[in-house]
Amino acid sequence: MSKGRLEAFCDGVFAIVITLLVLDLRPGPPGSSGYAMFVLAWPKVLVYALSFIIVGVYWVSHHNMLHFVAATDRLFLWLNLLLLLVVAFIPYPASLMSATHADTGSIRIYAGTLCVTNFVGLLMWLYATTSRRLVSPGFPLGFARFVVCIHSAPIVVYGIAIAFAGWQRSVSLALLVFVPLFFILPNPFLDRQIRAATWAIREHEGQVD
Amino acid sequence: MSKGRLEAFCDGVFAIVITLLVLDLRPGPPGSSGYAMFVLAWPKVLVYALSFIIVGVYWVSHHNMLHFVAATDRLFLWLNLLLLLVVAFIPYPASLMSATHADTGSIRIYAGTLCVTNFVGLLMWLYATTSRRLVSPGFPLGFARFVVCIHSAPIVVYGIAIAFAGWQRSVSLALLVFVPLFFILPNPFLDRQIRAATWAIREHEGQVD
Amino acid sequence: MSKGRLEAFCDGVFAIVITLLVLDLRPGPPGSSGYAMFVLAWPKVLVYALSFIIVGVYWVSHHNMLHFVAATDRLFLWLNLLLLLVVAFIPYPASLMSATHADTGSIRIYAGTLCVTNFVGLLMWLYATTSRRLVSPGFPLGFARFVVCIHSAPIVVYGIAIAFAGWQRSVSLALLVFVPLFFILPNPFLDRQIRAATWAIREHEGQVD
Amino acid sequence: MSKGRLEAFCDGVFAIVITLLVLDLRPGPPGSSGYAMFVLAWPKVLVYALSFIIVGVYWVSHHNMLHFVAATDRLFLWLNLLLLLVVAFIPYPASLMSATHADTGSIRIYAGTLCVTNFVGLLMWLYATTSRRLVSPGFPLGFARFVVCIHSAPIVVYGIAIAFAGWQRSVSLALLVFVPLFFILPNPFLDRQIRAATWAIREHEGQVD
Repeated sequence: MSKGRLEAFCDGVFAIVITLLVLDLRPGPPGSSGYAMFVLAWPKVLVYALSFIIVGVYWVSHHNMLHFVAATDRLFLWLNLLLLLVVAFIPYPASLMSATHADTGSIRIYAGTLCVTNFVGLLMWLYATTSRRLVSPGFPLGFARFVVCIHSAPIVVYGIAIAFAGWQRSVSLALLVFVPLFFILPNPFLDRQIRAATWAIREHEGQVD
Repeated sequence: MSKGRLEAFCDGVFAIVITLLVLDLRPGPPGSSGYAMFVLAWPKVLVYALSFIIVGVYWVSHHNMLHFVAATDRLFLWLNLLLLLVVAFIPYPASLMSATHADTGSIRIYAGTLCVTNFVGLLMWLYATTSRRLVSPGFPLGFARFVVCIHSAPIVVYGIAIAFAGWQRSVSLALLVFVPLFFILPNPFLDRQIRAATWAIREHEGQVD
Repeated sequence: MSKGRLEAFCDGVFAIVITLLVLDLRPGPPGSSGYAMFVLAWPKVLVYALSFIIVGVYWVSHHNMLHFVAATDRLFLWLNLLLLLVVAFIPYPASLMSATHADTGSIRIYAGTLCVTNFVGLLMWLYATTSRRLVSPGFPLGFARFVVCIHSAPIVVYGIAIAFAGWQRSVSLALLVFVPLFFILPNPFLDRQIRAATWAIREHEGQVD
Repeated sequence: MSKGRLEAFCDGVFAIVITLLVLDLRPGPPGSSGYAMFVLAWPKVLVYALSFIIVGVYWVSHHNMLHFVAATDRLFLWLNLLLLLVVAFIPYPASLMSATHADTGSIRIYAGTLCVTNFVGLLMWLYATTSRRLVSPGFPLGFARFVVCIHSAPIVVYGIAIAFAGWQRSVSLALLVFVPLFFILPNPFLDRQIRAATWAIREHEGQVD
């Protein structure tokens, strides 16, 4: 399986998942006015927007990860499919949170799904980079460790959100909003690390040639 | 993120959104004949056709916009995802309009969603073209201003549709139909501007070479 | 809009439409056994298979048509979107036929939708080939007329199916099954025509070079 | 129809089918807590995960099969569409198994659908490889026979699952889980066969050049 084909398939699944999220928004109850339906749907709209952005962040992260992967193998392919399995599952906890107005259980299931997603992404990254298994020879292992931290941090934050959900749900929701914002807002430190790693790989290739 | 990959992802989302619109058309009520179901569904069919064409126009506009964009960066990527978030939302106001037979509230929510979509598209364009940030050096800034006008005009028309919805809904609906027609019907003036801008960029590149 | 990009978008919509057809198959009524549900769903399974094959035939026809189109323009793009609008509509008449066990009205709406689909495809072809507007200079106009016949014939058959639906529904259904079979079964005459046209274009290009 | 275009279309359908599986997971019944909904949905989550992995395995198999196919023709195209028809049908038996908590009938319909899918895949492979119809001249026919065994084995296992479903449903479910595991777990024998066939083809091409 070439990397390009795998990327195209993953992109397709990401695009479908991100668009299916809107199917949770249905007009109702019958007979009420458009305003009344929209007011009732408002919490669902927020869940839609949050989940859309979270899946979008996963898509960009997945892209960045595969940018450094030079080859694929059988196990990496299945880890990728496992990641897609978890990502394609996200619409369900999202609809659960919509249906229960974000009660304790639904927040925990939502945050738990995101924990698992990050964990599978982390596994993929560790598998690809450990002893430079699927990355180019010049790949800086320090950058690999840095990305491990970046991918583990949300797991900790989602863990805190799970803990707080039984006590202060607003804190949990704020943490769920905070994680994607961290990845979206300009982040010169993260950008510099990615650029330095890209340069290190190119330089190494130049020395070889 | 390369421009090609971003375009492919956006195209995927556009294709899914445009096809999901049909899911709002369900047979019913149970036990009635096919004719009776179809007669009942007729207003929904019109909303389907209108929304399909509107999303199609957005797809073509998005394509034309990225035609002039030479590079992408982090913020442009997120603006693009924000645009997709709003476009992928369109099936919901469409189903709202179907369910309420286009009552005042549903027309306003539909037109408002389209306003926001055009506004986000405008932001993307302004971000890419201001001081030629993401366009080629020969890009004519006069054309950028022309596109700003083209993208702002629908916001005004949708605003009028929102204002009229409480008073004359047929006028609002006519305005909603008018905007995509304006972009579909042959438009020699618009075509000439696009061609002139494409030539200006090529000429500039020729002088550099 | 390049031809490749348009083809990719159309392929995406075809792939989504063909896959959405299965969403009409839902388990039910609650509490009955898997066998009982499947026996009840059997007519829907047949409608699913028929519609899948019909959309598949349209996909192949669309591909063959664009194979001979050398360029695209604004109007051709919109005719293509109009075709997608009608193709993406097919799941609705299909679900109507499922829900009413193919009553007279639903057969007529289904066959009518297919008539319109073929008619829009015909318009696209006529627009592209008349005075060789969007085809290569060596394109044989006799082949264009041949394809017009091939694309018009199903319109006639579907028209007969519409007429018979009020009298003998089984004849109408047989005609609906017959049309895609005609395109799927080996057809040496059709193959020879396509090959002859492809050769004629290549030969003309050879003379120019 | 070029092989690349056919592959892209098939990949699209696989990506959509695999993502649609989640639509079977809906929150409910209204008014219960998020935990209660999730506990109720748990069997459906298992069916989702199993079906996701099974469709994923079919996607990888389809990719591997087309890797050895050098050309396509009309009949191969239709066999491919027939395969997609069966694959796109999988969400229905999956939802049937969810809705009936895997009763005898639903297990048999599920396993039967997978039997048919493998059988159509087998037909495609036999059509492409018999007298090296659509494969390169150096393609080793021994490898073709090996793949026939690999593709037939699941049909036998699914057949046993169908037989056991009326007696010991847990055995049937274990067999349904076993087949994809066999394809996912590291399989040095299968890998060696694929590599040997790839080499044989390359060597033959080298001799010709």
